[in-house]
Amino acid sequence: MPYTIGLDYGTNSVRCIIVNVVNGQEIATAIHEYETGQAGIILDKHDHNVARQHPGDYIKGFEVTVKEAICSAQKVDKDFLPQHIIGIGVDTTGSTPLPVNAQGEPLGIQEKFKNNPNAQAWLWKDHTSYAEAAEITELAEKNRPEYLAKCGGTYSSEWFFSKILHCLRIDPEVFDEAYTWVEYCDYITGMITGTSHPDNLKRSRCAAGHKAMFNEDWGGYPARDFLEKLDPKLAALRDRLPDKTYTVSEIAGNLTEEWAKTLGLPAGIPVAISAFDAHLGAIGAGVNQGKLVKIIGTSTCDIIVASKENELADIPGVCGIVDGSVLPDTWGLEAGQSAVGDIFNWFVNVIQPGKTDEASHEYLNDQAAKLKPGQSGLLALDWNNGNRTILVDQRLTGLLIGQTLHTRPEEVYRALIEATAFGALAIINRFEEYGVKINEVINCGGIAEKSPLLMQIYADVTGREMKISQSSQTCALGSAIAAAVVAGKSNGGYDSFTEAQSVMAHTKETTYKPITENHKIYKQLYKLYSQLHDAFGLETQAKSMHNIMKELLDIKEKMNA
Amino acid sequence: MPYTIGLDYGTNSVRCIIVNVVNGQEIATAIHEYETGQAGIILDKHDHNVARQHPGDYIKGFEVTVKEAICSAQKVDKDFLPQHIIGIGVDTTGSTPLPVNAQGEPLGIQEKFKNNPNAQAWLWKDHTSYAEAAEITELAEKNRPEYLAKCGGTYSSEWFFSKILHCLRIDPEVFDEAYTWVEYCDYITGMITGTSHPDNLKRSRCAAGHKAMFNEDWGGYPARDFLEKLDPKLAALRDRLPDKTYTVSEIAGNLTEEWAKTLGLPAGIPVAISAFDAHLGAIGAGVNQGKLVKIIGTSTCDIIVASKENELADIPGVCGIVDGSVLPDTWGLEAGQSAVGDIFNWFVNVIQPGKTDEASHEYLNDQAAKLKPGQSGLLALDWNNGNRTILVDQRLTGLLIGQTLHTRPEEVYRALIEATAFGALAIINRFEEYGVKINEVINCGGIAEKSPLLMQIYADVTGREMKISQSSQTCALGSAIAAAVVAGKSNGGYDSFTEAQSVMAHTKETTYKPITENHKIYKQLYKLYSQLHDAFGLETQAKSMHNIMKELLDIKEKMNA
Repeated sequence: MPYTIGLDYGTNSVRCIIVNVVNGQEIATAIHEYETGQAGIILDKHDHNVARQHPGDYIKGFEVTVKEAICSAQKVDKDFLPQHIIGIGVDTTGSTPLPVNAQGEPLGIQEKFKNNPNAQAWLWKDHTSYAEAAEITELAEKNRPEYLAKCGGTYSSEWFFSKILHCLRIDPEVFDEAYTWVEYCDYITGMITGTSHPDNLKRSRCAAGHKAMFNEDWGGYPARDFLEKLDPKLAALRDRLPDKTYTVSEIAGNLTEEWAKTLGLPAGIPVAISAFDAHLGAIGAGVNQGKLVKIIGTSTCDIIVASKENELADIPGVCGIVDGSVLPDTWGLEAGQSAVGDIFNWFVNVIQPGKTDEASHEYLNDQAAKLKPGQSGLLALDWNNGNRTILVDQRLTGLLIGQTLHTRPEEVYRALIEATAFGALAIINRFEEYGVKINEVINCGGIAEKSPLLMQIYADVTGREMKISQSSQTCALGSAIAAAVVAGKSNGGYDSFTEAQSVMAHTKETTYKPITENHKIYKQLYKLYSQLHDAFGLETQAKSMHNIMKELLDIKEKMNA
Repeated sequence: MPYTIGLDYGTNSVRCIIVNVVNGQEIATAIHEYETGQAGIILDKHDHNVARQHPGDYIKGFEVTVKEAICSAQKVDKDFLPQHIIGIGVDTTGSTPLPVNAQGEPLGIQEKFKNNPNAQAWLWKDHTSYAEAAEITELAEKNRPEYLAKCGGTYSSEWFFSKILHCLRIDPEVFDEAYTWVEYCDYITGMITGTSHPDNLKRSRCAAGHKAMFNEDWGGYPARDFLEKLDPKLAALRDRLPDKTYTVSEIAGNLTEEWAKTLGLPAGIPVAISAFDAHLGAIGAGVNQGKLVKIIGTSTCDIIVASKENELADIPGVCGIVDGSVLPDTWGLEAGQSAVGDIFNWFVNVIQPGKTDEASHEYLNDQAAKLKPGQSGLLALDWNNGNRTILVDQRLTGLLIGQTLHTRPEEVYRALIEATAFGALAIINRFEEYGVKINEVINCGGIAEKSPLLMQIYADVTGREMKISQSSQTCALGSAIAAAVVAGKSNGGYDSFTEAQSVMAHTKETTYKPITENHKIYKQLYKLYSQLHDAFGLETQAKSMHNIMKELLDIKEKMNA
């Protein structure tokens, strides 16, 4: 019986699963929590924007979880043998770039730099580079508008070049020591296949295309003269970046003898080109044309693919439209919300610090479920961590309106859930306005599984049926599917994603259908949400209040300086 | 040694003090908590707008507190004798009208009606009558704009005729049974002087002028034909209202033999015309021309007087400009904020339900005091209970903007304090724009005494020194001062308020001076507050978002119906 390994490197931990290629059954799972920093994240108490990770945690995570998963698989299935593994797939968070030396080794694990946060991996949610993001956006608007057109019109502080440029500015020693920078996902495939040397490393189309302005139309990464204008050193770095990137249907390399020996796996099995967690998660959930996958966790990622047969207009505010970034031979489209679960966690853990029974997700969920739409008089914007889609602006903040002296915590809690649902609808509407039709919405991620209330609200707000992915670890499953595809039919895998998904990716029987009377109320509330959204989020609007959040942040930063 | 009694009927309890007329020393205090409902308030769990009180609590409160205060005075001062009491003064909340029969007895204490909330006193913060308030405002705008000019341009749901009209509509049995309606403050003076019969009752100028559109310029209460248009029964009620009202320098009546006997007081001592708590509180705090008194509690009342020598324009949004409503022979001006302490209480008691150490006013105050202005990036509107001045709109709600995933409870707490300070500044600015110069700000009430943080923020936001009244019970003290004035010099009292205040009303030595650098930041924040204030509070504004809170309330009410 053929099996594949799917590795999912998340924000706080790495997960490894072993999947039966014939039916998609996940026979074993192992998880390793990163050990450095707070829940795996290196923070800075003076700067909330900082979020870094130690690459050593990634290496250890690989060894620990694969070994443990194999052990566990052998316990569950007496016939299972490590020799049955026909391939490995990997996904990671991103854009999470890390500086490496000329051999492709991370600076962050070197003695000299191991305590320097700037030499570590710059986690996706690090927001220190907002000024550089603005600078890149401004330059591109003037000189190379096509660069922005594929990434939503604004280059984000979360992305590759913003972070590298910020490092260049604040820590030239680290920047100068780095031969090049690699994405987290590429670092992992390089590390396990012995191809991490920059000359050999096959980089992911997904990562490069969505976060590093890579596009074959203009010769790959941004042009040298463009980067030159940001900083000559960035132009020099451009020379050390490759011209080609690869889709998940291609092989990144083969498992090294050394790793094979350490783990007891067959040496030389193919490792698929990696991609961001959400993209492989979408594959694991069954993404395809007309099928939107929403990965709902601390933040949300929305993935869909579109046919290359018809022309696809640039979609303002959609963070990425990249050829083959999800499934080969289609446009991969990525959108998202910068905070979803994180907003609920903030309310429960920070605003209600009591840790009493009444200040728990369970209690608030139960109470909020008793409320009807519109009953609280509250409305919120879901921007506590900025807005990724469709405004692409990290410097937006939260807003709550309608509170009285009688407003209850569960009403606020529900308003925050509704706010994220309105944000989700804004994304769906934007896709459809630009010709990407959505016939089916498949949700995955912890919150989608755990909160029927949230799923019902999403159905009621969007007026669409919400389906849930069968697997609770779609990212890792997507990676395992990619592994089955790169192994190929001749080795017990598949020759296409369509084939592999039809066997390995499923949705649950239970779905959430919109309730007509709720949808009616939410339509009214969405109008008001849109009014706030546009007034506070858009500068060029008759009733723009766009200055307010910005000026508050300016004052805040000045006072905290 | 001459003494007076000051009675202060508050929202949850009545307080009685005995004051030495020669130096203002308060030698005894007694408090009685009302017994009916929740903390003395009859609520309706299906309608948050309902707030009623049982008149029986008022009668009992009089007897209990006066007896107890006398007892206590005798313990403190062996030379004190009840015979030394030369007069009584009374203040109450308002507008708190109650229906009475032809003898002036409250319907609410009759067997037939004792369980009917509509037959009780309609407490100032009862907001059930918002539709009637809008109706009265609309009619007056068309037919009698002068009626509104003296009460801020909008007739409030908290006021006399809104409540009576609402009762007429929802409970005609109670309305029909009522011979007339009296204000709480008039009911008390009538009850203790035996003048409660509607033919004899001397009504307060303060109550009638500020809340019932009483003005001698147009012959007292609103004209019959005006009320006729609202409802013919209201016009009939007009015939049973008097043509004359009285200021606190006048005698309402003399203590009855019966009460004198019950309490051990000299029969026949004068009882001053009563007024609202804030107005007598202002007198107790030293109000005068150029001296603004802010009474800061669950809500805030701002009182100042203006000379009658110069013409005084109508001030839009200032709830009352009434001849002699505070001090005789000056214009009495009243403004206020619908919720101040109530907003902080809501945050601590409702939003943070844990009742842990970290969810207390003390803890949050301490933590908030460590923050610098602007440091949190938060800004709030102080409208959780509507806006009394300068928008005069109960149907406004709260707003919080600027929250991130890192926003701490103490930051929200401080933002709420700042919001009330910005609201206070909006009122001061409005007074000055219309020629009422403010040279001094004297604060009183529990919060002014207990929160140096709040007082410093008020100083920093307004750029003005904040003084604190010496007495912690200025309302009762103001009533005792009025008692000394109606007793007159010949009986050991005074012949004028100026004379009485100079001896009996003092401010503390400690004051709060604005800190220049804080004021500078708050000036920037106030600009943003004003932008939100005008956008959400004003309909006729280029960038108006005035619809949002209204539509949310419409939906809320529909869903709760």
